[in-house]
Amino acid sequence: MNTRVAVPLPKAYLLLNHGPTVLVSSAHGGRRNVMAAAWNMALDFDPPKVAVVIDKATLTRELVEASGEFVLSVPARQQAALTLAVGTRSGREIDKFLTVGADATPASMVGAPLIEGCLAWLECRVIPEPHIQQTYDLFLGQVVAAWADPAAFSNGRWHFPDRQRHSIHYQAGGSFFATGETFEA
Amino acid sequence: MNTRVAVPLPKAYLLLNHGPTVLVSSAHGGRRNVMAAAWNMALDFDPPKVAVVIDKATLTRELVEASGEFVLSVPARQQAALTLAVGTRSGREIDKFLTVGADATPASMVGAPLIEGCLAWLECRVIPEPHIQQTYDLFLGQVVAAWADPAAFSNGRWHFPDRQRHSIHYQAGGSFFATGETFEA
Repeated sequence: MNTRVAVPLPKAYLLLNHGPTVLVSSAHGGRRNVMAAAWNMALDFDPPKVAVVIDKATLTRELVEASGEFVLSVPARQQAALTLAVGTRSGREIDKFLTVGADATPASMVGAPLIEGCLAWLECRVIPEPHIQQTYDLFLGQVVAAWADPAAFSNGRWHFPDRQRHSIHYQAGGSFFATGETFEA
Repeated sequence: MNTRVAVPLPKAYLLLNHGPTVLVSSAHGGRRNVMAAAWNMALDFDPPKVAVVIDKATLTRELVEASGEFVLSVPARQQAALTLAVGTRSGREIDKFLTVGADATPASMVGAPLIEGCLAWLECRVIPEPHIQQTYDLFLGQVVAAWADPAAFSNGRWHFPDRQRHSIHYQAGGSFFATGETFEA
C-alpha cells in the first residue's frame, strides 16, 4: 500500500470538489468488487456526504445494497487503464482483483476495500434512501474516514507531484482528461 | 451571445462527465440569479438527467423551487473570476447580472437564462423530489435542451480551442484547476 494519511472529515469534500472520476469498491459475504464512476459528487461538508450513481445491472450495486457501505478511491493517471478496465468489465464475469490489476487493502471503518496506488480514499456508509436508489440509481453516503497520499494532497490542498500522479476525468470511448494546472481566479 | 449549436440530448451527459464546475441560473416572477456549483453531476443518459446541490440559503434555491427550472452553464477559464464572484456573492444583496459581469441570454425551453461566454449549456426542468431537496439540498433535473460552443465541443467530444477556453474545476479559496490534457487509457 502506498503511504496514506488521514484527511480531517470536514476537508473530505475537497477530495471530490474538482470532479475526478473515482473507483467504487464494495464487499459483502466474501465477495468484493470495484467499478469506475464519473458520476459522483460531494453533497455536504460536515459531516461529509457524497452522491454516486450505481447502475442496477452491476455487481457493485448488489454488494453496496447488501453491505450498506462503499469506498470511493481517486485514481491517478498511471491507473487510467485500470480505471477503464474496471469500468467496462463486469464483476459478475471476472474477479477484477485477480484479472485487471486492482489491488485491495483493508479500510479502517468499512468492509469495502481501498484500492492501492490511488491518490485518495473516502470510506462511506450508505444513507438509506430507497426511493432514489430504486428510481435513479442514486446512492448517498456519509464519509466516515478519509485518506490521501500526502505527496498528492495535504493541508487541504491537492499538489500533484508528477504527471503520472494527477487525478483524471473520464470523457468517453477510453479517453480521459488529466486534471490540469492550478490557477487563482 | 457567442455561437452555439444544439447538442443531441443523448450526448448531453458528456458536457458534465468530466466534472467541471458549472453556473446555475434561474428566474421567476421577474427576478433572476446565477450562482456557481462544483457539486453537480450527470445522472442519466437518455433522457438525460443531472443532479446539483443548491443550498437553502441561496436566492437560486427560491427561484428554482418557484419556477421548477434551471440552466447549467459550463464556464471557461476566462470566466473564472466571474465564477468565483457569482459563487461568493448573494443574489439577495446584489443583482449579479448588473454588478459582476454575468450576461444573460434567453434559453429555448425554460425561463432561466443561459450565461453568455460559456462553453456549453444544459436547460433543465426540476424532477420534483421534495424529500431529498429538503433533506440534502439535492435537486434532480431533466435536460430538455443542450447547447455547446462548437469551437469547444462538437460530435460528442470536447476540444478546447485555447488556454482561456478550457473548462474549470473549483478547489477552494479562489483556486481552480483547468481541465488538462486529453489522453487515451
